[in-house]
Amino acid sequence: MASTPPTVAEYLIRRLQDHGVEHVFGVPGDYVLQFYDQLARSPITVVGTTIEGNAGFAADAYARIRGMGAVCITYCVGGLNAVNAIAGAFAEKSPVVVISGAPGRREREKDPLLHHKVRTFTTQYEIFQRITCAATVLDDEATALAEIDRVLAACQHQKRPGYIELPRDMVNVRPPVRHRPAEVKRVSDPDALAEALAEAVALLNAAECPVILADVEIHRFGLQQELLQLVEQTGIPVAATILGKSVVSERHPLYLGIYEGAVGRAEVKEQVEAADCLLMLGTFLTDVNLGIFTAKLERARAIEITSEKVQIHHHRFEGIEFADFLHALLRADLRPRPGALSPPGAGAGCPAGAGAGGQAVAGAGAGGQAGRGKAAAKADAVAQGKEAAKADAVAQGKEAKEGRAAVPGEAASAAPLQAPLTAPLTVDLLFARLNDFLTDDMIVIADVGDCLFGATDLVIHRRTEFLASAYYTSMGFAVPAALGAQFAAPEARPLVLVGDGAFQMTGMELSTIAYHKQNPIVVVLNNHGYTTERFILEGPYNDIAEWHFEKLPQLLGAGTGYVVRTLQDLDLALIQALADKGGFSILNCHLEKMDHSSALGRLGQAMEQKLKDMNADA
Amino acid sequence: MASTPPTVAEYLIRRLQDHGVEHVFGVPGDYVLQFYDQLARSPITVVGTTIEGNAGFAADAYARIRGMGAVCITYCVGGLNAVNAIAGAFAEKSPVVVISGAPGRREREKDPLLHHKVRTFTTQYEIFQRITCAATVLDDEATALAEIDRVLAACQHQKRPGYIELPRDMVNVRPPVRHRPAEVKRVSDPDALAEALAEAVALLNAAECPVILADVEIHRFGLQQELLQLVEQTGIPVAATILGKSVVSERHPLYLGIYEGAVGRAEVKEQVEAADCLLMLGTFLTDVNLGIFTAKLERARAIEITSEKVQIHHHRFEGIEFADFLHALLRADLRPRPGALSPPGAGAGCPAGAGAGGQAVAGAGAGGQAGRGKAAAKADAVAQGKEAAKADAVAQGKEAKEGRAAVPGEAASAAPLQAPLTAPLTVDLLFARLNDFLTDDMIVIADVGDCLFGATDLVIHRRTEFLASAYYTSMGFAVPAALGAQFAAPEARPLVLVGDGAFQMTGMELSTIAYHKQNPIVVVLNNHGYTTERFILEGPYNDIAEWHFEKLPQLLGAGTGYVVRTLQDLDLALIQALADKGGFSILNCHLEKMDHSSALGRLGQAMEQKLKDMNADA
Repeated sequence: MASTPPTVAEYLIRRLQDHGVEHVFGVPGDYVLQFYDQLARSPITVVGTTIEGNAGFAADAYARIRGMGAVCITYCVGGLNAVNAIAGAFAEKSPVVVISGAPGRREREKDPLLHHKVRTFTTQYEIFQRITCAATVLDDEATALAEIDRVLAACQHQKRPGYIELPRDMVNVRPPVRHRPAEVKRVSDPDALAEALAEAVALLNAAECPVILADVEIHRFGLQQELLQLVEQTGIPVAATILGKSVVSERHPLYLGIYEGAVGRAEVKEQVEAADCLLMLGTFLTDVNLGIFTAKLERARAIEITSEKVQIHHHRFEGIEFADFLHALLRADLRPRPGALSPPGAGAGCPAGAGAGGQAVAGAGAGGQAGRGKAAAKADAVAQGKEAAKADAVAQGKEAKEGRAAVPGEAASAAPLQAPLTAPLTVDLLFARLNDFLTDDMIVIADVGDCLFGATDLVIHRRTEFLASAYYTSMGFAVPAALGAQFAAPEARPLVLVGDGAFQMTGMELSTIAYHKQNPIVVVLNNHGYTTERFILEGPYNDIAEWHFEKLPQLLGAGTGYVVRTLQDLDLALIQALADKGGFSILNCHLEKMDHSSALGRLGQAMEQKLKDMNADA
Repeated sequence: MASTPPTVAEYLIRRLQDHGVEHVFGVPGDYVLQFYDQLARSPITVVGTTIEGNAGFAADAYARIRGMGAVCITYCVGGLNAVNAIAGAFAEKSPVVVISGAPGRREREKDPLLHHKVRTFTTQYEIFQRITCAATVLDDEATALAEIDRVLAACQHQKRPGYIELPRDMVNVRPPVRHRPAEVKRVSDPDALAEALAEAVALLNAAECPVILADVEIHRFGLQQELLQLVEQTGIPVAATILGKSVVSERHPLYLGIYEGAVGRAEVKEQVEAADCLLMLGTFLTDVNLGIFTAKLERARAIEITSEKVQIHHHRFEGIEFADFLHALLRADLRPRPGALSPPGAGAGCPAGAGAGGQAVAGAGAGGQAGRGKAAAKADAVAQGKEAAKADAVAQGKEAKEGRAAVPGEAASAAPLQAPLTAPLTVDLLFARLNDFLTDDMIVIADVGDCLFGATDLVIHRRTEFLASAYYTSMGFAVPAALGAQFAAPEARPLVLVGDGAFQMTGMELSTIAYHKQNPIVVVLNNHGYTTERFILEGPYNDIAEWHFEKLPQLLGAGTGYVVRTLQDLDLALIQALADKGGFSILNCHLEKMDHSSALGRLGQAMEQKLKDMNADA
C-alpha cells in the first residue's frame, strides 16, 4: 500500500485488479459518474454497453473465463436493469461484482424524492441482497474498505455475485483508518478430509466400472487441469453435464460425452447410470442437468464432491474444501485402470460398446495441438491410431481438410452430411457443419433453446470454451456474453449460436462489439419464433417479427451479414467469416419453423409430458 | 358470474377486463404458457414484445392512458427482466399488474433446482414486494380469487403496480368457493372534508394572486376535467410540473407553463413563487419537479391536496379522498376572479407581465378546435384577439399554414426560426419545428435527457397527451411506451422523442411496433453519446457507437427512415412522415454533440454545482 491512504474508489479499483479484473462493463449515469471518472483514470478499461442487463451478461462471461467480473452502473434505473443477468450469475455460480452508484449520504437526509428512487433509499440494496452472496452499502468510512474485502472474498469463495453500493459522496473520501487487505485462506479440516478421502479411494479402487461426472464447479474453481490429471492417471472415463460442458477437451479419448438423463444420448446415459462408483465432481443437480429429472443417479453408488459438501453414499462430511479434496485424490493411491490413457472400452464387465473409444475422434490436423497439454497430445496420438478408420468414415462426403475435426455421434454426422449442397439447411446439418468448422481458437457461446440443445453435440476442442446459461436458461445471454468473453480472452474468437427470439432480446449488443472491433461469428438460428415453446404448447404468442439480420452491418456501420438457406450458403458464409477477422460476421440461417435437434425433440417430449401430468393432477 | 365457478385463470382475465385491460404485454415462457393459452382464448389481446422490460414500459404507458395496464411474463428470467420498468411505474404511480408464471405447487416439493430458479422459490416474489403496492402468490385455491381482488384494488386505488404469481398448476384450478368480486369504495371522513374545504375556500377567496400547481395525480386519477372546470370557474391561473405536463391543454389561456424552479422558465417561476395562495393538486415533490431543489414553495402559503394527504400550511387532514376534495371544491363558493376565462394579467397586484396572457398562443386554424371543450374554444377566441399580433411575430419566417399552432416562449421560437433552411439542425430549431407540426391527434412521448427537457417547451394541444418517465427518468422508456400508447389510444399517433443512447437501450421494440403496423413518428435526437452527462462530467464513457438509425426499416422490413442534418431535411421528413400513416417513421436527426436545449443547460449547471458542493463537503 502506498503511504497516502487510498480513497474508497482507489481501494475498490485496486482490489478489483487484485482479483484479475481488467475490464468493467456498464452504462454511466449521474450517480455513478464520479466513480466512472476514477475508473477512467485507472488501468481498468470501462466497456460501455447499450443497456445494463447486457453488461451483466458480459461480466458473467468474463467472470467464467477470468475468475471474476464486474459491472458498474447507476442507481436503480441502471442497477434494476441488471437484476436478471445478476440473478443468472447467482444461479449459475459466476462471481460478478455489481458496483452501483447511489445518492450521497447527505442527499438522503430528510428522505427527499430524488430521481431514480423507487420506494426507499434501500430498495435496490434489498433487491440485490436476494441475488448476491454478499451485499454492502459503503456509507461508513470506518468500515468501507473492510466491507469491500468482505464482499470480494465472498464472491471469490462462493463463486456468486456480490453487490457494492457506493454513495457518490463517498467516492473520493479517504477513510482515516489503517487497513490491510484481508485475505481469508480457507483450510479443510484435516481429519474429515483424511476420513473422506480414505473412503473414496477404497470405493474407487474396488469399483469395476467407475465413471467421473464433471460439472460446473470444476470450471468455476479452475480445476480443469486437476480433473484431466485424475482422468489420465486413473483411466476412469469422464462424462460432463451440459452445465459442465467442455471442462475437459471433448476430443479426449476418455471423454464419454454429455450426460443429461433421457434427454441426452443413450450410450452416455447407459454408461453413467451403470457405473458401480460414480465420482461426481463439482456437480449442481439442476433439472436441466438431470434431463428434466429423467436422470437415474443412485446415491448408494455415488461420491459427490462440491464446494458445498462432500457426500459419500448417504453420509456427509463438513469442512472440506473442494480443491483440497481433488488435490488429495491426485496424491492418493488410486489404482490405474488397464486402460489408463487409453479407452476403457477394453475393460471387462462394463457396458459393451459404451466406452469412450466409441466416440473418440481423431485429433489430426496441424492446429489441433495448440494450447493443449502434453498428456492431451499423447491421448490424441493414442486415439488417432485406433480411430482413424472411423474418422475417415465420418469425413466421407466432404473434402478432407487439415485442421477440421470430424463429427461425433450418429445423428449429427455421416447421414446428413451426405445431403446435396443445395439442400435446404436443417438444424442437424447446421450443427454438423459447425462441428467441422470449429477451430482451436474458438469459444462457443450458446444461447437458450435449440442453440443450447443442439450445441450439446458440438465437440469443443479445448477445455472451458463452451459458455451458456445452461441452468438458469435466460434467453439473450449469448451475444452480450461474447462481448465479455472476447475481452477476457482476446486471442479467442467467439462462435455465437443464438435463436431469432433471443437475438431480438439482447443481440443489439453487437453495437458494442462493433465499436470495439471484436470479431465474433454470430450464427442466428432463425426458426421464425419461439420454437422450443412450440414443442410444449403452440399458439400465436410463439410467433415473432421477422428481422433481416443480415442487414445489421448497415445499421451499425460494421461487420458482414450473410443470408443462409442451403448447406452451400452456410459453407460459403463460414469460410468467408473465418477468413474475415476484421469485424463481426452474422449469419441469418433460415430454418423450418418446426425443425429441431434431436435433443430438443426429446426435451420437448419430456416437458410436454410434465405439463400433461400436471393438468391431470390439477 | 356464470353458474359454473371460474378457474383461477378465467377469474383473473375477467377481473382484468373489469379494470379496462384489453391488451396484455409480455414474452411467453414455459412456466406461463398455460396462462398464455387461456389469454389467447379470451377477448384480451396478447402483445408479445422483444424483451420483458419493454413490455413493462408498454404496459406503463397503457396504464397511464387507460387506468390500468398488465404484463404477463415467465418466472425469473422473464419477471426479473422487468424489474426496472415496474420500479419506474411504482415511482411514477402507474398501475401496472405483473402476472408471472411460476413452477407449480407440486414441482416445488423437496426444493429441487428447477430451471429459472435463482435462490429460493420466493426470490422473485420478495423482489416484487419491494416495487409493488400489493403482491401475492396464488398457491391456495381457498384464497386465490380474493387475492386477485385485493391486488387489483390496491393498484386501482394507490396507482402503483401489483404482482400476481400464478403457479402453473393453479391456472386451470376451479376453486370450490363461492366468490363475489369485492369492490372497495373508499369514502372521505365528512367532517374532516368539511373543515379542510372551508379553510381552503377561505384562503383562496382571500388571496389576491392565487395560482394552481397541477401535477401527476390529476392525470392518474383522471381528474383533468375537474381541474379544467376549477380553473375556468375561478379564473385562477394554472401551472403544471414536468411530471404533470399536459394535464391541462397547454394552449389554454389560463395556462402559465411548466414550473420547475430555477430550471424552468423564469416567468413561470416568478408567478408561481409569488402566489399568495398556491393550490397544489396531486403534487409529487420530486427533485426533478422541483428543479433539482431550486424551487421555493412556501408551506405557509400552500394548500396541497394529494391521494396521500390534505395539507394546509403546516397542518394535515387525514381520511380525505383526493377526488372528493376536488369535487367539493367545484361545488364550493369560490369567488370568480375578474379574469375568469380571460387572462388574469389584468388583475391588480400580481407580478407584471407574468400572467397567462403573456404566453397564450393563438389557436387559429381549422384543426385547432377538434376534441376541445366549449370553454376552451371560447378561451381561444379571447386569446386570439389579444395575442394575434404576437402569434404573427412568432410565425414570421415561415409560411402561415392552417392547422399549425405557433410556438410559445422566447428561446424556442422567433429567433431560431429565422435560420435559413440549409442551416444545420440544432436542438432549439428541432423543438421549434416540432411545435409547428404537432397535431391534435398526437401523443408526445419523451425519453430521458434533452428529449425531456426540450419537450418541456412543446405546447401539447390536448390534455394528457404527454408521456415521460419524468421523475424516475429511466432511459429507454419512450419507444416501448409508444407501443403501449397506441394500443391504448389507437386513434392517436405517437410522436416519440428519443436520444441515441436511449434508443440503443430499448428502441428495437420498433420491431413489435412494425409487427402490429403501428405508425409512430420516432425522432432520434442523435447527439452522438450521453450529452446530458457531458454537462455534468465529461469523459470517454459518454461516447457510444454510431447507429445509422435510418437503416432500421431495412432490418425490420417495415417503416421509413430519414437522415436529417438541416432544417430543410427536417421539414421534408416531417411532412412525409405525417402523410405516411402506413407504418413507423424514424428520423435520424444529427445534432452537435454539445448542442442542447436551454433547459438542459440550466439543469446541467444545477447538477454540476451539486456535485462540486458534494466534493467540497467530502
